[in-house]
Amino acid sequence: MSKGIISKDEDYSQWFNELVIKADMAEYSPVRGCMIIKPYGYSIWEKMQAVLDKMFKDTGHSNAYFPLLIPKSFFSKEASHVEGFAKECAVVTHYRLKNDETGQIVVDEDAKLEEELIIRPTSETIIWNTYRGWIQSYRDLPILVNQWANVMRWEMRTRMFLRTSEFLWQEGHTAHATAEEAIAETEQMLDVYADFAENWLALPVVKGRKTPNERFAGALDTYCIEALMQDGKALQAGTSHFLGQNFAKAFDVKFTGKDNKLDYVWATSWGVSTRLIGALIMAHSDDAGLVLPPKLAPIQVVVVPIYKHDEELENITAYVNGLTEELMKKNISIKFDKRDTHRPGAKFAEYELKGVPLRVAIGSRDMQNGTVELARRDTKTKETTSQEGLADRIEQLLEEIQANIYKKAFDFRAENITEVDSYDEFKRLLDEKPGFLSAHWDGTPETEQKIKDETKATIRCIPLNNQQEAGHCMLTGKPSTQRVLFARAY
Amino acid sequence: MSKGIISKDEDYSQWFNELVIKADMAEYSPVRGCMIIKPYGYSIWEKMQAVLDKMFKDTGHSNAYFPLLIPKSFFSKEASHVEGFAKECAVVTHYRLKNDETGQIVVDEDAKLEEELIIRPTSETIIWNTYRGWIQSYRDLPILVNQWANVMRWEMRTRMFLRTSEFLWQEGHTAHATAEEAIAETEQMLDVYADFAENWLALPVVKGRKTPNERFAGALDTYCIEALMQDGKALQAGTSHFLGQNFAKAFDVKFTGKDNKLDYVWATSWGVSTRLIGALIMAHSDDAGLVLPPKLAPIQVVVVPIYKHDEELENITAYVNGLTEELMKKNISIKFDKRDTHRPGAKFAEYELKGVPLRVAIGSRDMQNGTVELARRDTKTKETTSQEGLADRIEQLLEEIQANIYKKAFDFRAENITEVDSYDEFKRLLDEKPGFLSAHWDGTPETEQKIKDETKATIRCIPLNNQQEAGHCMLTGKPSTQRVLFARAY
Repeated sequence: MSKGIISKDEDYSQWFNELVIKADMAEYSPVRGCMIIKPYGYSIWEKMQAVLDKMFKDTGHSNAYFPLLIPKSFFSKEASHVEGFAKECAVVTHYRLKNDETGQIVVDEDAKLEEELIIRPTSETIIWNTYRGWIQSYRDLPILVNQWANVMRWEMRTRMFLRTSEFLWQEGHTAHATAEEAIAETEQMLDVYADFAENWLALPVVKGRKTPNERFAGALDTYCIEALMQDGKALQAGTSHFLGQNFAKAFDVKFTGKDNKLDYVWATSWGVSTRLIGALIMAHSDDAGLVLPPKLAPIQVVVVPIYKHDEELENITAYVNGLTEELMKKNISIKFDKRDTHRPGAKFAEYELKGVPLRVAIGSRDMQNGTVELARRDTKTKETTSQEGLADRIEQLLEEIQANIYKKAFDFRAENITEVDSYDEFKRLLDEKPGFLSAHWDGTPETEQKIKDETKATIRCIPLNNQQEAGHCMLTGKPSTQRVLFARAY
Repeated sequence: MSKGIISKDEDYSQWFNELVIKADMAEYSPVRGCMIIKPYGYSIWEKMQAVLDKMFKDTGHSNAYFPLLIPKSFFSKEASHVEGFAKECAVVTHYRLKNDETGQIVVDEDAKLEEELIIRPTSETIIWNTYRGWIQSYRDLPILVNQWANVMRWEMRTRMFLRTSEFLWQEGHTAHATAEEAIAETEQMLDVYADFAENWLALPVVKGRKTPNERFAGALDTYCIEALMQDGKALQAGTSHFLGQNFAKAFDVKFTGKDNKLDYVWATSWGVSTRLIGALIMAHSDDAGLVLPPKLAPIQVVVVPIYKHDEELENITAYVNGLTEELMKKNISIKFDKRDTHRPGAKFAEYELKGVPLRVAIGSRDMQNGTVELARRDTKTKETTSQEGLADRIEQLLEEIQANIYKKAFDFRAENITEVDSYDEFKRLLDEKPGFLSAHWDGTPETEQKIKDETKATIRCIPLNNQQEAGHCMLTGKPSTQRVLFARAY
């Protein structure tokens, strides 16, 4: 059945845009580069938030809230940080509108701010300015704080969920007494993100570190998780930064150690965003619509009754009410779609488009036979199943679907990580069989930049626990001790 | 024990400010009028969000997210709306910073926006512009959407939680086919707010309607809940607006009805904010610190061990672990404060300051006797209780505390609602025994304004289901059919 969506093999980018719109996930707003997240899309974000928030709390973090607006002078204090974000900042300059002589609403020039304010693109500066007041001694450390917030980066080229001027995210900002502790925190949060990606989004990721060129502006080290989309492009799904003492020095945040000596505080920051919704869509969906992993699907099971007479519907309803109660005990969400304004076929198509993992159809014949028809979204297979023990069967199937979606993505990635030893081969594969390309590189920013300029491929990461292997840089032939992962990326 | 907080009888306003800081709830930020909500304060907001969000979902609402920035032209489309908010808008005019010749970071004048963008003070305009695309027919109605977001109103006089330039809130925006439905929604959400205030915040509220002068900018009718603080000032704790067809007309949102006729859509909006945290503090707390109703307290029970030797602590710990398990089954949160850096007395003072409803102290003698000492924060009473059945006793006490805090606030309000029949008496009471003053008013905006100018008292609301009673306006002597509630307010 056609949903009016272009095939992803024909135009992957267009397929994504149409799917986001048709599946009621989001739409563009009249504000350039900003999107409206519709209820169905937002409910996935809410599920992600709930899971991540628990993971953060289980690792000792608390939430707090810091101001949206950052004084320009703060923003400028850490040199590489402002360098990285200055070109994409929304700037507040006035605090009042007024009616002009013609009755038009205009900016009131009498209400010009003494100092311009920046809408946060990230909150390191305002937070480290605050931490100065919170930290005197080692007893005040560590500080383990997270913030759920909106941020703004004035992007020139935008794409829904993946790159928008405003987006929603969480940003963790922690303060520690030693570099070792801060690095351990950075790595712990990378593990949390990888766990979340693999076990909830069903998205296999490579954990690694960025090259200096690709680091967060102000970080000494940036760790990341990288995922592969179905078109062979990579997507950075989360980052965790070891910030060293850069922000503590910029904002003069010192503490007295156990040894009574004064030192600057060590910092980390880490974040994931609504971009993950884009990753979820791009990684698993197909030409018929979304394919959502059951653990994050807003509706896990939908029941569509098939009937002619009201009394048939009554029978079906009685059965579905019992099933609903059983599923609720298992924490499985179920929707019973009794609308009489839509035919069963239209409902099937709608839930396929929206990626509901399991569909249960029940007709009068089923009621006589004590059966239902179960249809899986991921494999598009159907089975006729007994009504007896159906809740258990559904629970089991949802687990199978979650595992299967992960396995499919895992196998796809395995097929699309290729070791490459020559630059010609590298360029050929980027066009013919894009994916992660594992290649030797001489370790210089110049070579990295040249490859990027010539091929649009970047070093996605140096995988953690990378195998050491003698080789030669594919571009310069200089010696190299390990392969790194290249790809074109979102 | 002195916490270094001024007495509330001496200076209520200063008491509030000091309490907010000392209890680690929040602090001012360097951005004028914006505050930093610290983890302890934010955890109360998280509890409020969880309860309200469930209430909204139980009444059929879904969450969504709309852009932070609103084009100035949208903002100007509803005349009284822009009138109401134009004077307190943060305006974004540029989207880039740059280095000038001297290396200073400055606004890049080449990156001036064609149209200025307003940071949302509320989202009616951007949302109704969006609803135009969502609504064609009565089948698309109702739309029941809520948003959790930050908003900004450039306030000249600010006070933490109660009035800040940026605040966190939820804003519901619903669309309906008929005025009746929209009014029913407006009233339903007022009931939800009143239920939340009374049963969770332990805060008795008066439900009522605003006079035209005090209505939300763009509303046909504004419903509110009004609470009384301990200094006799009123505080508006939530509002629910019937917007009529004003925004539908401003944004051309029409629908085809069942009768096939085209009509404008009917609207409501409703919101509560982090202001409720201010209300919670102001309504219940005392000179020793916060008094939190158990249902919203981040920590409901704290256990402080009193011991000299490590083996004593081991015994106590073993017992507390068992208690913790029992309380977790009852969904009661418990903190066991084993820190050896603080003495028991310091811990007692800290949890008193932070308003933890119940404190359990256990010493070696208690372990021998099978007892504990239980101390209530609200009444400051202590009891020695058997360890046997302690979880049940705690559960019961928490319920008693919740009820007692409510009753105390209810009795205080009952003592401070006074019927007044003369303007002299009215003015005298405002100074001598402030509270809600129930008085006759001639129903004109001019009289209302004059009373406000002369006394700083405003009409807080016309209570719902108000008793009809013939009388004379206390100021003009003109006839009146009902009393309304006046007060000085936050």
